[in-house]
Amino acid sequence: MKPEILEYMTELGRNARKAASVLAAAETKQKNAALLAIADAIDSRRSALHDANQKDLERGKANGLEAALLDRLELTDARIDAMIDGIKQISALQDPIGEVSDMSYRPSGIEVGKMRVPLGVIGIIYESRPNVTVDAAALCLKSGNATILRGGSEANLSNRAIAECIVEGLEQQGLPGGAVQVVETTDRDAVGALITMSEFVDVIVPRGGKGLIERIASDARVPVIKHLDGVCHVYIDSDADSEKAHAIAVNAKTHRYGVCNAMETLLIAESLAAEVLPQLAEAYIAKNVELRVCEKTKVFLPDAVSASEEDWSTEYLGPVLSIKLVAGVEEAIDHINRYGSQHTDAIVTENYSLARRFLREVDSSTVMVNASTRFADGFEYGLGAEIGISTDKIHARGPVGVEGLTSQKWIVLGDGQIRT
Amino acid sequence: MKPEILEYMTELGRNARKAASVLAAAETKQKNAALLAIADAIDSRRSALHDANQKDLERGKANGLEAALLDRLELTDARIDAMIDGIKQISALQDPIGEVSDMSYRPSGIEVGKMRVPLGVIGIIYESRPNVTVDAAALCLKSGNATILRGGSEANLSNRAIAECIVEGLEQQGLPGGAVQVVETTDRDAVGALITMSEFVDVIVPRGGKGLIERIASDARVPVIKHLDGVCHVYIDSDADSEKAHAIAVNAKTHRYGVCNAMETLLIAESLAAEVLPQLAEAYIAKNVELRVCEKTKVFLPDAVSASEEDWSTEYLGPVLSIKLVAGVEEAIDHINRYGSQHTDAIVTENYSLARRFLREVDSSTVMVNASTRFADGFEYGLGAEIGISTDKIHARGPVGVEGLTSQKWIVLGDGQIRT
Repeated sequence: MKPEILEYMTELGRNARKAASVLAAAETKQKNAALLAIADAIDSRRSALHDANQKDLERGKANGLEAALLDRLELTDARIDAMIDGIKQISALQDPIGEVSDMSYRPSGIEVGKMRVPLGVIGIIYESRPNVTVDAAALCLKSGNATILRGGSEANLSNRAIAECIVEGLEQQGLPGGAVQVVETTDRDAVGALITMSEFVDVIVPRGGKGLIERIASDARVPVIKHLDGVCHVYIDSDADSEKAHAIAVNAKTHRYGVCNAMETLLIAESLAAEVLPQLAEAYIAKNVELRVCEKTKVFLPDAVSASEEDWSTEYLGPVLSIKLVAGVEEAIDHINRYGSQHTDAIVTENYSLARRFLREVDSSTVMVNASTRFADGFEYGLGAEIGISTDKIHARGPVGVEGLTSQKWIVLGDGQIRT
Repeated sequence: MKPEILEYMTELGRNARKAASVLAAAETKQKNAALLAIADAIDSRRSALHDANQKDLERGKANGLEAALLDRLELTDARIDAMIDGIKQISALQDPIGEVSDMSYRPSGIEVGKMRVPLGVIGIIYESRPNVTVDAAALCLKSGNATILRGGSEANLSNRAIAECIVEGLEQQGLPGGAVQVVETTDRDAVGALITMSEFVDVIVPRGGKGLIERIASDARVPVIKHLDGVCHVYIDSDADSEKAHAIAVNAKTHRYGVCNAMETLLIAESLAAEVLPQLAEAYIAKNVELRVCEKTKVFLPDAVSASEEDWSTEYLGPVLSIKLVAGVEEAIDHINRYGSQHTDAIVTENYSLARRFLREVDSSTVMVNASTRFADGFEYGLGAEIGISTDKIHARGPVGVEGLTSQKWIVLGDGQIRT
């Protein structure tokens, strides 16, 4: 690691640690006012944002960045509006910090409970979308955490321009600019420093493709909240309502293809296959969804491609679907727990006992009954916003909102009690 | 890593993963019955336990193990009784698994909430005390987790004998023996395998000295619930009740010395020093506690040793105490957040606003008002038992009981809702 990069990152770390203790003690109204001031600063500096973004876009084009990435990189006025709206929504959320719960008296006479507190300093590593800079900064600020943001090098000038707005908003409300810092160097060593300086960083949230996240998790010396793949299933049980099953299975696959909560494998109880499969296949084919199917499914869809073993654990992120017929809920649960990615899985059934069993035994971050996997999302769950969807079991599981960026400390209130 | 060790550990991992899915779905009464059957098996196999333990003790003596370690290794009848009692207490605890909370309807019509679930497979790495084998196995079983236990090599035969009782109890109640496995090899590569096989192990809980835990945390590829040091403080505020202050400061230091929740540094508001310090010093000196003090304290205790910079961050685990006079609560909080280990810190005060401020701003796993730091303990907090005290912020903070060995998944109940 280049010593000057390490030194630079250490300086950011030191600033962040210092700012974190100010933020942890900041009042709700001060944090909210700073969020609104940031929104105002972004609004009033639109032309500076556009200029910086234009330079990023031109460099991206010159470097042959592909069209999809250039699109994600672009800061249109509509996207700036959405950023501003997002900040205002986060400002309106309830402050999770300081919430006291579970207070109870113990036989010794002490009163014991928990108080919700920030994690401290959060490092965010993400790819080209500059709006993440604002979303992540706002969520961290609301939850009383300092943050160090490391965006993609393609968006470096855009992110730095956004950071200026953020610092303006923070300082205007008397909060330290060190509360939100954007890494200005595009040197890759900066990531290496960020994920290993455990004295300054409490948790890393990487956002991006599976490859990036696996690399970070493997090199990190700081806990990582990981969002790996979403191999989501819908299981249509023998006791399913056919209409609900059809609607959910179509929605879960075709509402959007490139998202982590889209269904990738459809499981159908053999006894219901004749009733639901032909119509479903028709719907998928009408939408140009490629079907990769098990041998039993071929009885109904002789022209479909045979699924390989690999298909069952593949996140297509596109118009491809694997289909398997199963004997019943037990085989469905086994298949999901074996091949799934513990993201989001749904059963369609009217059977009370099977629904309960599926809810309990499927080991995923969200388990659903009679609803589309597409609902797995922080906004839909009422978190207000999300910083990602955790496929970990430790700390936060599923959509991570402001609460996922906090911890709980114990508090003990006494009247002079000593231990005897 | 030796291939045969890797193969052996992989086999344990595979067994554990398989058993974990059975345990996750096991009913409360079956888990409780298995716990009681384990207690019975231990009771009825006392002589086998004594024999195995005797061999460990003899080998330990032959290898020159020091007396304190030999003492910790010994399985007396009283200790076996305590193990049995511990299991029965854990059996009587409420089952955390399956608890559903925070269910609410969302505008889309779906109902969203959380269900408490086991983490999966927990690896425990510990030193010579064989009773940890039983405690850890029982806590993991209660919380629906499979566990792989790696005890100290000095206790290997004792641990294996205990494991036989555990497997007997499990299988008698129809649970898989793979739910609790003791690593039989004393090869150090077994630890290396355990902490890196993330496909089979969800979390590692090391129990032992700071050195062991730091080594494991640094090499692990699996999340680690760490218990590092306990540099605990009591701050006697200017508005303290002198009697409570005296009792708490004496208790926190002298009730037991070698424990992580003992006070290591006493902070006193300058304005109250003349009132409380001489009497306190007398009490400490009467108990042969060595005092290492700041320059201002020397005015009152001219014969005391001067504290070095290092003293302020030292966990003595013995009859030594550092004392510092501070201007007030602000300096106390700064000192604690700078030199402490984020374990447990207490203020003694009758001042409402200062108590609130201390509670909020001290960044430790437990913050107390008018109570001895010695209360920081799973039993005292009502957790029933603890597997350790976490000094991490992620996942579990402070005493970790059965709930700390669980996670929450989201559950979504619908009537056919799709996302539009």
